Amino acid sequence: MASTNYTYDQLYTFSENIFKSIGCSAEHAATATKTLLSADLRGIDSHGIARLSGYVRLWEAKRVNATPDIKVIHETPSTAVVDGDSGLGLVVAPFAMKIAIEKAKQVGTGWVSVQHSNHFGIAGYHAMMALEHDMIGVAMTNASPLVAPTFSIDKMLGTNPICVAAPAGKEPAFVADLATTTAANGKLEILQRKNADTPDGWVQDEAGNPTNDANILKKGGALLPLGGDREHGSHKGYALGAVVDIFSALLSGANYAPWVPPFPAYVPMPVQQPGKGIGHFLGAMRVDAFRPADEFKAAMDHWIQGFRSARTVPGEEKVLVPGDPEREYEAERMANGIPLLEPVVKDLQQLAQRFSIPF
Amino acid sequence: MASTNYTYDQLYTFSENIFKSIGCSAEHAATATKTLLSADLRGIDSHGIARLSGYVRLWEAKRVNATPDIKVIHETPSTAVVDGDSGLGLVVAPFAMKIAIEKAKQVGTGWVSVQHSNHFGIAGYHAMMALEHDMIGVAMTNASPLVAPTFSIDKMLGTNPICVAAPAGKEPAFVADLATTTAANGKLEILQRKNADTPDGWVQDEAGNPTNDANILKKGGALLPLGGDREHGSHKGYALGAVVDIFSALLSGANYAPWVPPFPAYVPMPVQQPGKGIGHFLGAMRVDAFRPADEFKAAMDHWIQGFRSARTVPGEEKVLVPGDPEREYEAERMANGIPLLEPVVKDLQQLAQRFSIPF
Repeated sequence: MASTNYTYDQLYTFSENIFKSIGCSAEHAATATKTLLSADLRGIDSHGIARLSGYVRLWEAKRVNATPDIKVIHETPSTAVVDGDSGLGLVVAPFAMKIAIEKAKQVGTGWVSVQHSNHFGIAGYHAMMALEHDMIGVAMTNASPLVAPTFSIDKMLGTNPICVAAPAGKEPAFVADLATTTAANGKLEILQRKNADTPDGWVQDEAGNPTNDANILKKGGALLPLGGDREHGSHKGYALGAVVDIFSALLSGANYAPWVPPFPAYVPMPVQQPGKGIGHFLGAMRVDAFRPADEFKAAMDHWIQGFRSARTVPGEEKVLVPGDPEREYEAERMANGIPLLEPVVKDLQQLAQRFSIPF
Repeated sequence: MASTNYTYDQLYTFSENIFKSIGCSAEHAATATKTLLSADLRGIDSHGIARLSGYVRLWEAKRVNATPDIKVIHETPSTAVVDGDSGLGLVVAPFAMKIAIEKAKQVGTGWVSVQHSNHFGIAGYHAMMALEHDMIGVAMTNASPLVAPTFSIDKMLGTNPICVAAPAGKEPAFVADLATTTAANGKLEILQRKNADTPDGWVQDEAGNPTNDANILKKGGALLPLGGDREHGSHKGYALGAVVDIFSALLSGANYAPWVPPFPAYVPMPVQQPGKGIGHFLGAMRVDAFRPADEFKAAMDHWIQGFRSARTVPGEEKVLVPGDPEREYEAERMANGIPLLEPVVKDLQQLAQRFSIPF
């Protein structure tokens, strides 16, 4: 499919203007834009500017509050609960992560569970905020129910990602950012565009049977937890997705399990919701709350170099360290621009027209 | 294969006596026994009394210190590093978990990274210590390098398990306890006894090619990270195993990656080890550091009931909640005894003879 390259600055200005147009403050528009575009830079196209119009539609549907009063509603020295006041998760999550970092400065670690929020973009952006403070960052969120637990037909969990970012010394940081499913929705979309089947273990149909149909989610099917099926450990992916749900929503008072609000504004809200909005969980651990930061970072360098020099299986050139592919995307796209597919460009052009903003 | 049932009390007395025979204090022998046998009770036979002679051999090889001076070597209000002084992980990890719990009482959460330890049994035992305090418990450990990261021939990680335990109200607690591999070693042993092949995605051979040979670890092969191969998300299982290594060993100063000491005493120690012993990571979060414990536990009950009532795929009777299978084992084995396979019984009889302890 045809794509056009845009510079980061072009997309930044456009996105910031759109967020201002729906009523966000200058500060919030900037934060939301940085968070959103970090996905495009890091090659996670499904979570970047392609979703901008989706956020606008949530605002139109009054599911997103452009001028939220984000606040701490409970805290201890190492924990807090944040009420996002239905704001953009793109803004609420960085607010919460800053609190986690402040608490880590004071008592070694900080852990913030968030209620009443919306989709927060990529987990990686938030976790990586900790790195410049010589802290390990953790970020999780629950999400629209698209995933069937092992043996279930019903979709009870979201793709519920986990990110852990750890600073290194001379080497770039370790950044593990993963959905707790075999494959996330973005991977299905790539196959849909190619009219290709999925590998086994990615999806099941409406009746709970295995399928390779990349369009199955639109027909009532479900994504499968990391592992795919019981024999390949799907109960582990399910358990990890469940942990994300508990930390993000059960600790905060957000909605959980099948009651999490859907991202597409046209999908009706679940009835009898047990909580508020969607939930996130952000954490920061000061490295020197355990050992001197220089020692830790030297050990991380040694660890990373060990993995990079591992011998490869036939046909592969190198063993990657978590975070490598995204960092390579970021360098390449900062230099050469961010490719947007034709439907995304059209979608942004419509947004531009509607808000009378140049694109 | 033939097996004989033993009562928990029979195995408890025997194991406690063995630990005392190698020089453990009464208190340590009791703690080590409780930790060890929790694996047998919960159906994780590979990590229970079947390993007792392995621990004894580590003591003989002077890799385990039966009278360790376990101590905190660094701390902040919410963190600590524990030096296990080469003690049994079965004793060191509960010591560290108690510190995590005490810190959580004080400042909301407690996080303890442990160096200079040995294998700690099942992660579940340690994480579940938090439950009676209305806390969420977290336990991880690194382990002997048996796992090849995505695209690697070299075995760079252990099965590096993660356990998260969360209290509920009327429902039993949520306990997710999982190796970050598709299948752990115990599953291979079951197939070996049956002379059966493994499913795809469990193991690879010495050259890094996929194989279904359940005996491949003895021939230089490797376990694969959860996901199995790149197409099925093995880079996620690898990333999770790496996070466990970083939290357990890079934060504490233990050995990491391929330098983790092997469990079998006959396997030579890796050369140029960068740290001390093996590493663990234990955490506790007070539920009411986030919201009132009763509210959280009521939400957990609702969450659990939601999953239990999910519709099942064809051929399956129920959707399980993490912790269900282990809890069912525990009830059954407490009532009817713990079945030990013939080779395990013989192994214990040899131990009995050697230390002149009745079995």
